[in-house]
Amino acid sequence: MKTFFEPRSVAVVGVSESPTNLGRRIMNNMIQFDYSGIVYAVGPKGGVIHGRRIYHSVLDIPDQVDLAVILTPARTIPQIIDDCGRKGISHTIIESAGFREYGDDGVALENEILDIAGRWPIRLLGPNGIGTMNMENGLATPFAILSSGLAAGGISIISQSGGVGLSYMNLLASESLGLNKFASVGNKLDVDENDILEYLIEDEGTKIICMYLEGISDGRRLMEIAARSDKPILLHKSNIGEMGNRIAHSHTAALSSDDKVVDAALRQCGIIRFHDMHKLGNFLKILALPPMRGKNLAILSRSGGHAVIAADACEMAGFDLPQFPGEFLAAIEKHFRANVIKLMNPLDLGDLFDPDVYTRIMEETIKRDEIDGIVFLHTYNPQNEMDKSRKLLPVIEQLSDRYTKPIAVCISSEEGEISLLRKDYAY
Amino acid sequence: MKTFFEPRSVAVVGVSESPTNLGRRIMNNMIQFDYSGIVYAVGPKGGVIHGRRIYHSVLDIPDQVDLAVILTPARTIPQIIDDCGRKGISHTIIESAGFREYGDDGVALENEILDIAGRWPIRLLGPNGIGTMNMENGLATPFAILSSGLAAGGISIISQSGGVGLSYMNLLASESLGLNKFASVGNKLDVDENDILEYLIEDEGTKIICMYLEGISDGRRLMEIAARSDKPILLHKSNIGEMGNRIAHSHTAALSSDDKVVDAALRQCGIIRFHDMHKLGNFLKILALPPMRGKNLAILSRSGGHAVIAADACEMAGFDLPQFPGEFLAAIEKHFRANVIKLMNPLDLGDLFDPDVYTRIMEETIKRDEIDGIVFLHTYNPQNEMDKSRKLLPVIEQLSDRYTKPIAVCISSEEGEISLLRKDYAY
Repeated sequence: MKTFFEPRSVAVVGVSESPTNLGRRIMNNMIQFDYSGIVYAVGPKGGVIHGRRIYHSVLDIPDQVDLAVILTPARTIPQIIDDCGRKGISHTIIESAGFREYGDDGVALENEILDIAGRWPIRLLGPNGIGTMNMENGLATPFAILSSGLAAGGISIISQSGGVGLSYMNLLASESLGLNKFASVGNKLDVDENDILEYLIEDEGTKIICMYLEGISDGRRLMEIAARSDKPILLHKSNIGEMGNRIAHSHTAALSSDDKVVDAALRQCGIIRFHDMHKLGNFLKILALPPMRGKNLAILSRSGGHAVIAADACEMAGFDLPQFPGEFLAAIEKHFRANVIKLMNPLDLGDLFDPDVYTRIMEETIKRDEIDGIVFLHTYNPQNEMDKSRKLLPVIEQLSDRYTKPIAVCISSEEGEISLLRKDYAY
Repeated sequence: MKTFFEPRSVAVVGVSESPTNLGRRIMNNMIQFDYSGIVYAVGPKGGVIHGRRIYHSVLDIPDQVDLAVILTPARTIPQIIDDCGRKGISHTIIESAGFREYGDDGVALENEILDIAGRWPIRLLGPNGIGTMNMENGLATPFAILSSGLAAGGISIISQSGGVGLSYMNLLASESLGLNKFASVGNKLDVDENDILEYLIEDEGTKIICMYLEGISDGRRLMEIAARSDKPILLHKSNIGEMGNRIAHSHTAALSSDDKVVDAALRQCGIIRFHDMHKLGNFLKILALPPMRGKNLAILSRSGGHAVIAADACEMAGFDLPQFPGEFLAAIEKHFRANVIKLMNPLDLGDLFDPDVYTRIMEETIKRDEIDGIVFLHTYNPQNEMDKSRKLLPVIEQLSDRYTKPIAVCISSEEGEISLLRKDYAY
């Protein structure tokens, strides 16, 4: 799998001088993400792109090529794969659509391609996908325009749908969560999610793996790989009902499975299942924090109402809110005017906001053996409390690092402020 | 209740020249929201604020006052209420904390206040709340700094918690949803959520009512009022478990109830229950659309993956996706290259995006008798498809209005683009 993410040279097949040509977009992405290898453009009409020659065929490229990325009409692919074989290219990504998802003719075409690839042999990713990305070397093979805010980090994505994969990348960009590697598996003619997953659980740059699948190729193998992974694996398995299956079958030729069986199997091998992007964003942020050692949480909240909502949520999620011992309460009581806060867990800090007092209480709380983590709920208006609220965030991060316990921060403020925090105070 | 929202004159009691004084904030809010009545400042130390006199007592105000908003230490309140009575003020809002939520002394103080108020009589809102707002006349009595993006509209809020009420206002501002009236009921010493709700269901400016409650004062009355409301009522009832109750009791002195009973009762009287802000935002946006007459949805999606996810969600929520008849499919097939889209419901529109074709398909779909509403899923990158994507939105709005059927739009794009859409293309 390594060559799909770490090729030293790439040929993009299907590039033309036409401004609407999708192959150009792949070339543009490779340049924009500053790919560290050599990239060659190939297209039957030849011509020039970005000051470089468009070769008529991969056979005309004068150097060794590790990976070919192909985006040409479906019927042209068998010949191109054969050319790749003759050129000594061992890995190809087929982004073109028009195969199994369109019926019997497409199945025949896929079998022909598989047959040719097997003779050389060539590994195939796709068809009907948007390829791979690697933020470590700037490899960016999708034909779509990519989210401008995308940064490098530890999250790797496997997606059966290109569109959903792009939405995940939009989410990472908007939440300042860093991408490591990306693979769109499409119709999974040769390489499937398990092949990629097996590579990613050994891959040094990947810390968290996030998957979107409409069909599971080999459930037993998925469970085996997941069970030996010490990296968190998040999965959105869609195509749950009959209506979803109707379109999923034509989209990526995926068959549905009994969803209760899927649920149980995923739980058994430790895969975290999610059903929407909102949950995914929360899970990714939570997984970036140190894990809790037990189930004892402390809730610190500026607003009593938010504390009640958080306590409900903790109880429903199976956490405990242990009572604080008397000497701890006596210690923190000194920081406050009498009668302003109620000394219990959840701790309602009251409306008066002093970042130094908040920091001291947070440290007193996080250092206690019986506390495994903190949920901190803060509300403020940027007009008058922006600076002292923002100042608090790096301090919270240091406390969490020092005591290797998670401090989840939930802020309610104006939209503009929240947007800025997402960008400037992401971990 | 009318005087709590439509007073001709307001006295703010507890104003001083100190820059940290919270009464000043109320004065500032009244000015910022351009209150159309007369506002008087009152505080024992006297002085000047914004070029006007701070009266030592409400008794010194030379004119008639409809409503007093009080934010002074708890122990001073009984005397002030009595002064209000002597002045002929019929309605007071007490924003001060330090009553029942702090134990037995607080209960005694509350009883004393209730007793004095009953003699005149005076209606009381609070204590331990943040007052009322009315976007129609600029009444803005909260002592908190308010969300700068807040606009006028048809959504009214009743909140038992000031902090949660402010978070709801942040949500409205960030989603460009307009506020009509707001009331924070706090400890509900006299006026409770039912009194306000009864007023709002008759209030012309209120189209949708949204409530946050930690305790329900009189469930039977709530059900009776809700049952005769033709306006949608959304309720976040927190304080569900034991841990939430611990803090809720000290926060607004709320007692918990059996949550299954709450659930069943709310369903029976047509109140829509929600548990988080994310859901609230979605519900408010959905309720702004024309209601569906049946349960038949059409899903139109640019991305096959998003179509699968939407179809799953529709099935789980109990919607139907009826198959389109042959002549409809033949008609829309003409708009596309052969084999690019699969003709079914969900309709995967394929990657090629032409706003005119999309509009024609959407109109062909929404006008059909067997279709009660559309879910339209669009993905684009602002770099190359911003203008034609934005152009689509007013057209969709017109189609929805013309056929009085809902078209729910779900867009996946970069964060900056989504933010702009929220502001510029809200209904």
